[in-house]
Amino acid sequence: MNVLVLGGDGFIGSHFVEYALSRGCQLSVFGRFSCGATRNLEHLHNSIKLISGEFANRDDVAKAVKGQDIVYHFISTTSPASSWNDPFIEIDENIRRSVQFFKIASEHGVQKIAYVSSGGTVYGRHEGVTDENVLERPFTPYGIGKITIEHFLNYYREHGQLEADIYRVGNAYGPRQPMHRPQGVIAHWMNSILHEQDVLVYGDSKTLRDYIFVDDVAELIGQSLESLSDSGTYNVGSGQGIAVTELLAIFKRVIKHRFSVRMLPRRDFDNVSTILDCKRILTKCPGFKFSNFEEKLAETWQYVRNTKTIFS
Amino acid sequence: MNVLVLGGDGFIGSHFVEYALSRGCQLSVFGRFSCGATRNLEHLHNSIKLISGEFANRDDVAKAVKGQDIVYHFISTTSPASSWNDPFIEIDENIRRSVQFFKIASEHGVQKIAYVSSGGTVYGRHEGVTDENVLERPFTPYGIGKITIEHFLNYYREHGQLEADIYRVGNAYGPRQPMHRPQGVIAHWMNSILHEQDVLVYGDSKTLRDYIFVDDVAELIGQSLESLSDSGTYNVGSGQGIAVTELLAIFKRVIKHRFSVRMLPRRDFDNVSTILDCKRILTKCPGFKFSNFEEKLAETWQYVRNTKTIFS
Repeated sequence: MNVLVLGGDGFIGSHFVEYALSRGCQLSVFGRFSCGATRNLEHLHNSIKLISGEFANRDDVAKAVKGQDIVYHFISTTSPASSWNDPFIEIDENIRRSVQFFKIASEHGVQKIAYVSSGGTVYGRHEGVTDENVLERPFTPYGIGKITIEHFLNYYREHGQLEADIYRVGNAYGPRQPMHRPQGVIAHWMNSILHEQDVLVYGDSKTLRDYIFVDDVAELIGQSLESLSDSGTYNVGSGQGIAVTELLAIFKRVIKHRFSVRMLPRRDFDNVSTILDCKRILTKCPGFKFSNFEEKLAETWQYVRNTKTIFS
Repeated sequence: MNVLVLGGDGFIGSHFVEYALSRGCQLSVFGRFSCGATRNLEHLHNSIKLISGEFANRDDVAKAVKGQDIVYHFISTTSPASSWNDPFIEIDENIRRSVQFFKIASEHGVQKIAYVSSGGTVYGRHEGVTDENVLERPFTPYGIGKITIEHFLNYYREHGQLEADIYRVGNAYGPRQPMHRPQGVIAHWMNSILHEQDVLVYGDSKTLRDYIFVDDVAELIGQSLESLSDSGTYNVGSGQGIAVTELLAIFKRVIKHRFSVRMLPRRDFDNVSTILDCKRILTKCPGFKFSNFEEKLAETWQYVRNTKTIFS
């Protein structure tokens, strides 16, 4: 099976590339590779085909999708924080370019698209565990962009005979997560500890997040490779809510390194609670087992310490 | 109260302007008025202030919203049919420009926005009666544009301290509805009868629509004028589903004029069924009574016959 991964040199993307290679797929990765493989793909550069291009450029995208059976779409230029004061980036970059890609894919014989949406932002301010039938009420441009792209993908399912899987991923963490962005609290805290800066804790015991190890995400979303003739929308998380204060206690246990903490209120663009009901995707993946959170947190910290000279 | 109406010279817009005048509001209407009042507003031109400008132009919009307490937004450049093969018009014209307007309004002290969305397209392929808590699954770019604009309005409620009422209107009909567009089956059929062309009936007895007389729409959405300090999302329809075949029978009864009919299958962009549960808006409008459908259909036909030289 020919698999194209848009943004496959990113955090979740690169882990998915590894997973798909382990399944025996022919992998192409689309991104800005004018200087060759970027650091997240260096170790794989003999096993994959790199296609260098701009996502905004129609011809680049058309060349990349030619002959592909399925395309995974991981490209996103924003975060809830970065989108908060500028909704137009969301419209012009993420929504418009994604729709352009869907159109090109539908015209070039791609059978299926797998889109990585956001479980933490599309539902908005819901409390408790949310399944895929909860009314979407995003309140950040980032989350609005995600649900809008989902809707346009549904339009192309009807209009262009594409199949589409949509994955609303919770708080993914693990090696290679960018450490300098406001998104990804685990990477952000580890970066602060490494650089002996205060760990900034936004929120309180009611600030719940659903953490999932990045390799678990890669395996679960890999279920799209099983069949190119069905479509679905799936939450991808652990189903467990961990309070930000509880995460802090786990950090203190796992990371044997002193660090200082600054407690701050939730920011305007922060959701209060995200816990994803993931029964639907788990039914599709019999035998799947979640990684152990504390073990993987320790592994991530080890990785961050070893690679600090490259990534900091 | 200072009320600005964007697109107030359109079909629903001009009826709302009449209603708001009857309530004693100070009315300004924004649109393309370089040659003075357009035909839908000619009879009101002494009672309203016309502000000529382009919705795409930031300065024009900023000048128009200055000093306004509430702005009604009726501007839309597409229909489900016209959007079906070009989602980019929806993104570039309706979504982007509406968000630009929300931003300008929030920066210029507007207290509330009332947005006219679409009850017939935002919910998608649901059967039975839909209330406002039904999961939105639009499948036309037109419907996706509407729900996306709703989401961005919710964002500005949080980000910019705007209040916002969203009206998901069913199949409005009545005088001044454009007769040459594929949207608005009643106007379209009347146009065909007037010009002795076949009446095109898309669908069958399962093709249900929720018709509401345009003056009823104007009165119901006028409830936003009662309070500028609350927000809500409301279906605006009759709550009754009329099959397209039943509508045909009513036409034969009401319109004493022979006409030929061509039965055709539903088009790809047609929804099967739209019936709106309107309890929420009716609770806000005690004493409101719906117009009689057959009476208003006859009245609309009379209007269409009288004005044919102007409108055809």
